[in-house]
Amino acid sequence: MWDERDLLMIPGPTPVSSKVLREMSKPIMSHRSKDFSEILKECVEMMKEIFRTKGDVFIVTGSGTACMDAAISNTVSEGDKVLVPVYGKFSQRFVDIAKSYGADVIEVKLEWGKALRPDLIRDMLRENPDVEVVAVVHNETSTGIRNPIREIGKVIREESEALYVLDVISSLGGDDIRVDDFGIDLAIAGSQKCLATPPGLAMISVSERAWERIEEKGNRRRTYYLDLKRYKGSLEKEVPETPYTPSVPLFYALREALDYIVNVEGLENSIKRHEIFSDAVRSAVREMGLELFPERGYESRTVTAVKIPEGIEDKELRGRMRSKYRVIIAGGQDHLSGKIFRIGHMGSITEREVLITISALEMTLKDLGFDIELGKGIGKAEEIISTGMDQIAK
Amino acid sequence: MWDERDLLMIPGPTPVSSKVLREMSKPIMSHRSKDFSEILKECVEMMKEIFRTKGDVFIVTGSGTACMDAAISNTVSEGDKVLVPVYGKFSQRFVDIAKSYGADVIEVKLEWGKALRPDLIRDMLRENPDVEVVAVVHNETSTGIRNPIREIGKVIREESEALYVLDVISSLGGDDIRVDDFGIDLAIAGSQKCLATPPGLAMISVSERAWERIEEKGNRRRTYYLDLKRYKGSLEKEVPETPYTPSVPLFYALREALDYIVNVEGLENSIKRHEIFSDAVRSAVREMGLELFPERGYESRTVTAVKIPEGIEDKELRGRMRSKYRVIIAGGQDHLSGKIFRIGHMGSITEREVLITISALEMTLKDLGFDIELGKGIGKAEEIISTGMDQIAK
Repeated sequence: MWDERDLLMIPGPTPVSSKVLREMSKPIMSHRSKDFSEILKECVEMMKEIFRTKGDVFIVTGSGTACMDAAISNTVSEGDKVLVPVYGKFSQRFVDIAKSYGADVIEVKLEWGKALRPDLIRDMLRENPDVEVVAVVHNETSTGIRNPIREIGKVIREESEALYVLDVISSLGGDDIRVDDFGIDLAIAGSQKCLATPPGLAMISVSERAWERIEEKGNRRRTYYLDLKRYKGSLEKEVPETPYTPSVPLFYALREALDYIVNVEGLENSIKRHEIFSDAVRSAVREMGLELFPERGYESRTVTAVKIPEGIEDKELRGRMRSKYRVIIAGGQDHLSGKIFRIGHMGSITEREVLITISALEMTLKDLGFDIELGKGIGKAEEIISTGMDQIAK
Repeated sequence: MWDERDLLMIPGPTPVSSKVLREMSKPIMSHRSKDFSEILKECVEMMKEIFRTKGDVFIVTGSGTACMDAAISNTVSEGDKVLVPVYGKFSQRFVDIAKSYGADVIEVKLEWGKALRPDLIRDMLRENPDVEVVAVVHNETSTGIRNPIREIGKVIREESEALYVLDVISSLGGDDIRVDDFGIDLAIAGSQKCLATPPGLAMISVSERAWERIEEKGNRRRTYYLDLKRYKGSLEKEVPETPYTPSVPLFYALREALDYIVNVEGLENSIKRHEIFSDAVRSAVREMGLELFPERGYESRTVTAVKIPEGIEDKELRGRMRSKYRVIIAGGQDHLSGKIFRIGHMGSITEREVLITISALEMTLKDLGFDIELGKGIGKAEEIISTGMDQIAK
């Protein structure tokens, strides 16, 4: 049974601070009022800072998938070539979305756990110069992989006229993402990951190049709720608004959470904090004698995927961590079920949650008879955290 | 400036009780946990009771418009004939959605403020026997009109094989709607109206007939986030879930709000309460010497649209009601702007909010020099409320 003391260390939704949660208990205001418009504008402006873009940003009431859908359905029409490298559950989703709209999908399957190489994109674009969209997942939470998105962006711009669609749902706010500098045409984020807001809002950035494509597609486009032109039209009104009723309390929460990132902690510090925490978790896990799942050098900064050692059962490991120590971590998805576990370390969590999770993992492994010396993993984490935290400007 | 004491009497979002708001400050749980699955199941079961259907019901994270879109995009493909009678802002939206998907839309324009007659639907269906979908808005909030949906359903079934798509966003829970009995194939609701939950969730019921059509359309369908088959597949899993991350706190709130309607107040009582309140508002307004906008006999039970009398300015009327008495009512939309005002009386409000609103209107009209006898309108409302409330079973 779920308990309010449970510590949720999965790759999203992430724990939400009580300050942010409390925002949602404010009375509902009219979504067509000037007061709500101010909140919307503030959220959009702060999202632009976090996306690092001077382009457009829209906030949609829906799951992150709603904006993945928007990115594809607004730019792709029947028969268009879409290049999608597949290396996990969420990159697979881009394939499914593009196929829904009748795209001619070039699906490049990589082994799960391997990173995407810019050279692969280069080769594929040379073979298929008529690709219109390249859709990439930055941080693949299903495998704990983090891809070199800056270099990929460079290759796309050098080799083609294709749009660069990038899912940064589980990394934005916790990793170095620069929409304008990296040449990302449509970047997709979600409220419930590093932004530490409850699920229910998704964000999308749209470049000038993307707008040109959207205009070109004109009547061949087939979408309504997710039609980006309607979001643009509403946001450009004298009193900016959303085209359809937004989730008012989620916007209250988002404003509070973004204000913390942008004006209290600072985006750079948030990114650095995620880097330190991920380093601490990875190092501690290795120190315990466990093996990481993703390819070395491409490990995610927001989720760590670990191979389950022989002799240990996934259900026992995660079950005991939860029942005895009240720490919830995630299992593997699809064919990785039972083979890996995943620790989410994203959002507004502090070093406390990270240390507690490592501690619980160490004790659980010991409980289950795994050959482990208590204190070694957590000691390593302490070392990294105590040194690392000094680098974060106060 | 918005103030927490403001009384929000617009046609949605509606005031949300602090009990429901407080639910949202509970910590976030994993949306893939058994605990969340239980909440989802409870919400779906209660929604079935409120829709009065044994068919399927899905809950989507998004605006009500997301489910209007789902109803059309799942059942209509390019060139299909869709009949849409247009008599307000939201029926117009059905036209726009159907056109987005390339439908051949038969748009029948009625004067705003007039009700839809079943005979018109009969005539149109006889002229166009190949219509595949008839899309109707039950309670058109832009004009305060309530249409005879039972009779319309009867005509559609008698005359054609068309699907009956019905928007009950602003009436479900506050009016007599029987999805199965009235032959409604796809009914669409929203969280933020009579269900007295914050905005951000939309609901859709799907009949067997609708599923057959959805299957028929197969690959010609073009939608992903709103693909109803994915919602069905996820809900039919051993541990029911949603296909994409749902807004966890909105589900906490929805469960609390639906529990109140179904298990505390009772659906019949909720409907009766809305009937009494709407009768009280209409009668009071007439007693003040004002004229109602919608055609007599077809007035909405959840929103009352009133003509602004000569010599009174909309901005002054609504501005003073807000600044002096802290009651927020809505203006007219599109070409009705400045010509009507609209009082929302839906959701979990009590007689207190209704009486206060009538009182504020009476005082405001007096303040603005309108020829009115204070106490007459509110007295009439008291008469109706005091008598009516006796009919609600305790």
